[in-house]
Amino acid sequence: MPREAELNLATITEDGDAVLVLDQTLLPRQASQCRLSSLAAVAHAIRSMQVRGAPLIGATAAYGVALAMGESAEDDALASCLSTLAQTRPTAVNLRWALARMERLLTPLPAASRRAAAWREARAVAEEDAAANAAIGRHGLAVLNSLAASRAGRRIDLMTHCNAGWLATVAHGTALAPVYAAQAAGLPVHVWVSETRPRNQGLLTAWELAQAGVAHTLIADNAAGLMMMQGRVDLIIVGADRIAANGDTANKVGTYLKALAARAHGVPFYVAAPLSTVDFACPDGASIPIEERDGAELAAGDVPVANPAFDVTPAALITGIITEFGIKKPDALRELAAATPAAGPSQGGGSV
Amino acid sequence: MPREAELNLATITEDGDAVLVLDQTLLPRQASQCRLSSLAAVAHAIRSMQVRGAPLIGATAAYGVALAMGESAEDDALASCLSTLAQTRPTAVNLRWALARMERLLTPLPAASRRAAAWREARAVAEEDAAANAAIGRHGLAVLNSLAASRAGRRIDLMTHCNAGWLATVAHGTALAPVYAAQAAGLPVHVWVSETRPRNQGLLTAWELAQAGVAHTLIADNAAGLMMMQGRVDLIIVGADRIAANGDTANKVGTYLKALAARAHGVPFYVAAPLSTVDFACPDGASIPIEERDGAELAAGDVPVANPAFDVTPAALITGIITEFGIKKPDALRELAAATPAAGPSQGGGSV
Repeated sequence: MPREAELNLATITEDGDAVLVLDQTLLPRQASQCRLSSLAAVAHAIRSMQVRGAPLIGATAAYGVALAMGESAEDDALASCLSTLAQTRPTAVNLRWALARMERLLTPLPAASRRAAAWREARAVAEEDAAANAAIGRHGLAVLNSLAASRAGRRIDLMTHCNAGWLATVAHGTALAPVYAAQAAGLPVHVWVSETRPRNQGLLTAWELAQAGVAHTLIADNAAGLMMMQGRVDLIIVGADRIAANGDTANKVGTYLKALAARAHGVPFYVAAPLSTVDFACPDGASIPIEERDGAELAAGDVPVANPAFDVTPAALITGIITEFGIKKPDALRELAAATPAAGPSQGGGSV
Repeated sequence: MPREAELNLATITEDGDAVLVLDQTLLPRQASQCRLSSLAAVAHAIRSMQVRGAPLIGATAAYGVALAMGESAEDDALASCLSTLAQTRPTAVNLRWALARMERLLTPLPAASRRAAAWREARAVAEEDAAANAAIGRHGLAVLNSLAASRAGRRIDLMTHCNAGWLATVAHGTALAPVYAAQAAGLPVHVWVSETRPRNQGLLTAWELAQAGVAHTLIADNAAGLMMMQGRVDLIIVGADRIAANGDTANKVGTYLKALAARAHGVPFYVAAPLSTVDFACPDGASIPIEERDGAELAAGDVPVANPAFDVTPAALITGIITEFGIKKPDALRELAAATPAAGPSQGGGSV
């Protein structure tokens, strides 16, 4: 498993009474860390996308709670920091999941005990994310192995969208975890990387794949349909920012267009995400809030702009959801809610 | 009808023994003309996309032949300039159509008579393009009128892709000709403008719509599917670079993804193009060559890039093709080949 270790880079690490994060607004030009030592710094890092990717946002927010508990021992500091962090990004449910988890743990504790407990829990959130993504890699590898078996050495052409690699998580990535597992297993894998306008997270994906020595080619988002029509895509794996209970999946805007093209051309379309991305309290995609971001991401000057950051891919277009507990059909997700104590229906509906 | 006149701008005009073209690589920052006085200058202008848009490329190439006839009175100058111009852009068939038309006219003439005849014919190509596009506007207006009738004053939300407005033609535009006709008729029309990566021709569309006072909003190409899922798109009109005899249509890459989403959401999807864009010698979309452009349009440095400039939308996804002769179902295009003397099956198969 990659890369962050080899590079001596990590998306998030503890550093005394602060956390160091890789500043993703500077990538791929420059790989440098910034030190977050306050709730305000964490909230800013999430809002400005120095830290991004649903799983990484969740872990960073957990550390934000820990930092806030060090800033104030007042009883209402907890509610206040949960509210501040919850407002940073509306679509990624891992943020709300992590905050609800911190709230459940910390609320019963006396204010003076919260700081140490919060640091321990944030560390657990981060470690569990890395472990979940490693498991996603193993389950996804089975899909790639069976593709490889059918093609006698010809390379596997996988397409992804946005960045759901190790940069988007605490480690390993979600959509790219199976790619790294395949690379480690010696499968010939090549990734079509969509530019992902307007913020060009595809350049992050190209960068992290290059670090890992995985063959890849950048394309315009617009080219995805042609590539599938030409038979140049064997499967698609994307990440997710929130998966509704029925399997409808919110992910970076443009994902839905790829799913439509995949259906038209019989290309398997997988979503890879830890169970913390599933919002069992959200019945379907229509209930997922879609973040509208600043028009300046798209055009300068006085051009009128609409800039939704996510779209919703209906469950019917999704071949399978690769979780740390295995690959599920979208309509079988609810089995996992019952099977895992950490993921009951209440998790997504926390008060944060 | 717009705008180029009001602005005292035109995409192409004669200027003594040269032509002036609006340099589209400088738009929307700067509206300035460059003077093309040689075959080489015309070939460069088309290749570098100072001049772009299938209909405008055709007219500009016709003037390029006229300029070449002034540079050399040798008998083989004609074949040589046709070959040079044909190689500038591979997908737009209007280029080949215009060159074949010049070849048919000039080949029988003595070399000394070709120059004057070529200028007259280039002028005719340009004037006929403007007239064809005005007719496309009138036919397309009927579609918008019937939409308007069903909605009691609510605005019509049209989506387009790339730039197929007056900037892409000698005048009026193709996909936007119905929009300008609707604006002139007082219909409340609003245009969703796709950025159109990697060359951002959507910014040209936003600019020309702003000049004309037409309401519009820029979106990322990735947002088109979400917009349709949310019911915010009433119809789509795009231009075309080449339409095969069966109605399959090559247009700017990303068009196909919009057509797939339109089908998924019951949004009518129209192609607007003069008959010179139909290649009756090309049986279907699979036979249309797709131009691969420089990867530097998409990413700097050593990132591996694939950059196809066009894709093919299958006829089955196209509601109708708006031509100067009326609106045809894709499978009825061949009726026009028989009905119009200027557009026989041989036109697209010229030797150029």
